[in-house]
Amino acid sequence: MSLENLEATLQEAFDASTKIYEERGFRRRIGFGKKPALISVDLANAWTRPGNPFTCDQDKMDQEIIPGMQRLLEACRKQNHVVVHVTTAYQMPDRNNPHTDMGLWHCKIPMEAVDLADESLWQIDSRIAPLDHEYVMMKKRASSFHGTPLAGYLRSCGVDTIIVTGVTATACVRTTICDGLADGFRTIAVRECIGDRVPGAVAWNLYDIDSKFADVETVDTCVAYLEKTPGAAA
Amino acid sequence: MSLENLEATLQEAFDASTKIYEERGFRRRIGFGKKPALISVDLANAWTRPGNPFTCDQDKMDQEIIPGMQRLLEACRKQNHVVVHVTTAYQMPDRNNPHTDMGLWHCKIPMEAVDLADESLWQIDSRIAPLDHEYVMMKKRASSFHGTPLAGYLRSCGVDTIIVTGVTATACVRTTICDGLADGFRTIAVRECIGDRVPGAVAWNLYDIDSKFADVETVDTCVAYLEKTPGAAA
Amino acid sequence: MSLENLEATLQEAFDASTKIYEERGFRRRIGFGKKPALISVDLANAWTRPGNPFTCDQDKMDQEIIPGMQRLLEACRKQNHVVVHVTTAYQMPDRNNPHTDMGLWHCKIPMEAVDLADESLWQIDSRIAPLDHEYVMMKKRASSFHGTPLAGYLRSCGVDTIIVTGVTATACVRTTICDGLADGFRTIAVRECIGDRVPGAVAWNLYDIDSKFADVETVDTCVAYLEKTPGAAA
Amino acid sequence: MSLENLEATLQEAFDASTKIYEERGFRRRIGFGKKPALISVDLANAWTRPGNPFTCDQDKMDQEIIPGMQRLLEACRKQNHVVVHVTTAYQMPDRNNPHTDMGLWHCKIPMEAVDLADESLWQIDSRIAPLDHEYVMMKKRASSFHGTPLAGYLRSCGVDTIIVTGVTATACVRTTICDGLADGFRTIAVRECIGDRVPGAVAWNLYDIDSKFADVETVDTCVAYLEKTPGAAA
Repeated sequence: MSLENLEATLQEAFDASTKIYEERGFRRRIGFGKKPALISVDLANAWTRPGNPFTCDQDKMDQEIIPGMQRLLEACRKQNHVVVHVTTAYQMPDRNNPHTDMGLWHCKIPMEAVDLADESLWQIDSRIAPLDHEYVMMKKRASSFHGTPLAGYLRSCGVDTIIVTGVTATACVRTTICDGLADGFRTIAVRECIGDRVPGAVAWNLYDIDSKFADVETVDTCVAYLEKTPGAAA
Repeated sequence: MSLENLEATLQEAFDASTKIYEERGFRRRIGFGKKPALISVDLANAWTRPGNPFTCDQDKMDQEIIPGMQRLLEACRKQNHVVVHVTTAYQMPDRNNPHTDMGLWHCKIPMEAVDLADESLWQIDSRIAPLDHEYVMMKKRASSFHGTPLAGYLRSCGVDTIIVTGVTATACVRTTICDGLADGFRTIAVRECIGDRVPGAVAWNLYDIDSKFADVETVDTCVAYLEKTPGAAA
Repeated sequence: MSLENLEATLQEAFDASTKIYEERGFRRRIGFGKKPALISVDLANAWTRPGNPFTCDQDKMDQEIIPGMQRLLEACRKQNHVVVHVTTAYQMPDRNNPHTDMGLWHCKIPMEAVDLADESLWQIDSRIAPLDHEYVMMKKRASSFHGTPLAGYLRSCGVDTIIVTGVTATACVRTTICDGLADGFRTIAVRECIGDRVPGAVAWNLYDIDSKFADVETVDTCVAYLEKTPGAAA
Repeated sequence: MSLENLEATLQEAFDASTKIYEERGFRRRIGFGKKPALISVDLANAWTRPGNPFTCDQDKMDQEIIPGMQRLLEACRKQNHVVVHVTTAYQMPDRNNPHTDMGLWHCKIPMEAVDLADESLWQIDSRIAPLDHEYVMMKKRASSFHGTPLAGYLRSCGVDTIIVTGVTATACVRTTICDGLADGFRTIAVRECIGDRVPGAVAWNLYDIDSKFADVETVDTCVAYLEKTPGAAA
């Protein structure tokens, strides 16, 4: 398969869809609010580094996602914005255990590959290491909101806007964005900082997201917004 | 744009992705459980009939989704399986009301088009009209589980498997499936009974769903399963 | 039983408990925030008027709860604060229906007494009738947050504080307050506007709430706060 | 205050309430289902051992709760029933951190006393130490269900009944039970295995729970049920 052909063909489909959507009042801009949080989804070693079933596209990771995240983190830290580093692991990664905390997800994908006992797997990538006062939140399902205290946490911080990065576009990033909107937050997806591991998936998921669930914005736009917006008093 | 070209190109991308997914242990089969429920998402007039911003692909609706749903309903009713007809509407569909029950979703898509005061908009399509003992559940967000009693309801009925149909693949069906899996239910997406309103969206969303969140199965397969599986005693 | 003796004895227990709580750092004040919402729980006819299994203490209702609510509503309406009128009813109030939307709650209490088909049961009491732009939210469980869009709705309105009234102290009010705090909202319980139907229940539930989950404040204090706090621009 | 007087007076109030409740159809029995889980709430050192603000009544703990839990655990382990050990701790237990994962709860009670960095605080009491295949679930709020994957986890295990123990009656046990019922599970509270730290609180909370949210049953009854009920195949 030619990836160039895939991209061109997808772009044609997106253009045709955009025409329909715009005629009907979809693809509106939700905009940035007054108090943002950066939600970084599964940028932990099992996803960011080689050698795991969950390893994502390494060129994209090293050349776009990590450098983009470094710029976003720097902007958040200057202004003391909320940052949440989300990761995923299981206490009982044994598919034969009928009571595994993987629930049913291992019946679709290889969740047994992230064992809580091996911290190197679920630790946030050292290139974007959390600071002590940044929340490292463990989840068990795809969405960062589902079965976690995230929505209540963000409300208690006064957050009204989530800026979402990470992997994968198909699963944990998309479900996080959909839930975030439903939970009452303005939703921004950072174009360069969302990855996946199969061809086309980033493109079509960002297209769906931009049409219905979040504004897809560049790192530059997000950094400019974060830098000019006051965070919590130091 | 040629839709045939789109389909062929997407199929190439899916094939390439499937190779990667299968090497890594994705795309497993979750299987049917012992006690199913049919969850029919937004097959209400604003989505199934012409003339609304939410109107979906009418050929697909009339020729595949509705006839498929009729067969699924018949099989469920024979065995007294749980059926939930999900629909969506707003008490305050005024975008200038800062306290509208649309939340923030109208900032992305035209939710103001489904006014609770006009029952004809959110009423389930008469071709698949609910029976009195089938739950017609109103939701406000994309997912049938988010901000609704659905997960608790299904657990109280003893349900372990959800068979999901409706519109749209991009939004309410996909989020329902992702949440259903996270909430501990076996998840089945009915191939012919899931629609949308833009080119390619059904194909790529079903592909993502089948790879990570639910088994995509035909109406025939689902009907056969429903017919042979005992439901509640009459 | 002498109710005066009950009250005196409970007060002794509360005093002894308060000593322990205060030594250990419990019973802190959470305080009012910047953007309140009034959450009025189950002040619908089945609870506020005579003749239903859910009917609450009528003296308290007529002399304190309704008059207090009228003052709170007036203050909210002057400033355009968010008001949510919560009520409860069931589409399938038949205990023999294995798929009833009552879930399992009818296995403990007579939920079958609020039939969705009889609007007079679940309609908000006419003495505190909702205005058109005030959200009338139907719930199925005790908590106003559980299985409803309330948390996301309030976040989308920018609300950071919930002022809770209604019935009963034991069930729907207490669970609403506990969930509201967990969902990230400052929680205020209005002393005169919370009722029940059995002796002692208001006293001990308000005591527990004040110790751990919300500040219990008078109508006067809440009205003064609501009047001086700016709501949404008209 | 005389505790004997408190107990006698509360019993009078309960008797008067029971009369009202029974006339109206409250205080029904929900009963045990077919597939139980034992949910043990906050029986970690900060609550079970002396010296912490959260320390509970030590006589009750040592003489009733821990011995009762040992019998319940033994019965569960014989039959391979689901056991969940719930505990609570915070990554950022600093009240001056505006982004603490304590959310707003520290504004009411001293949550800063359970620091995630000090495992001795939140570790489950060694007298009822978890086995490797029993889920040790960290929560941040009162309810074991709120902001956790518990409901989905239990559904994925096929559980239909939760047997709840732990501390405190006022907060984490009561909210867990209320949420469990709302999430569709049959709810059983184990009389001898639920504690608190102030006089009367266990009595009135168990009374409210028994009247509306769960059956209060003895250890003997629960052990007999657990022993005769088949769990997961080994």
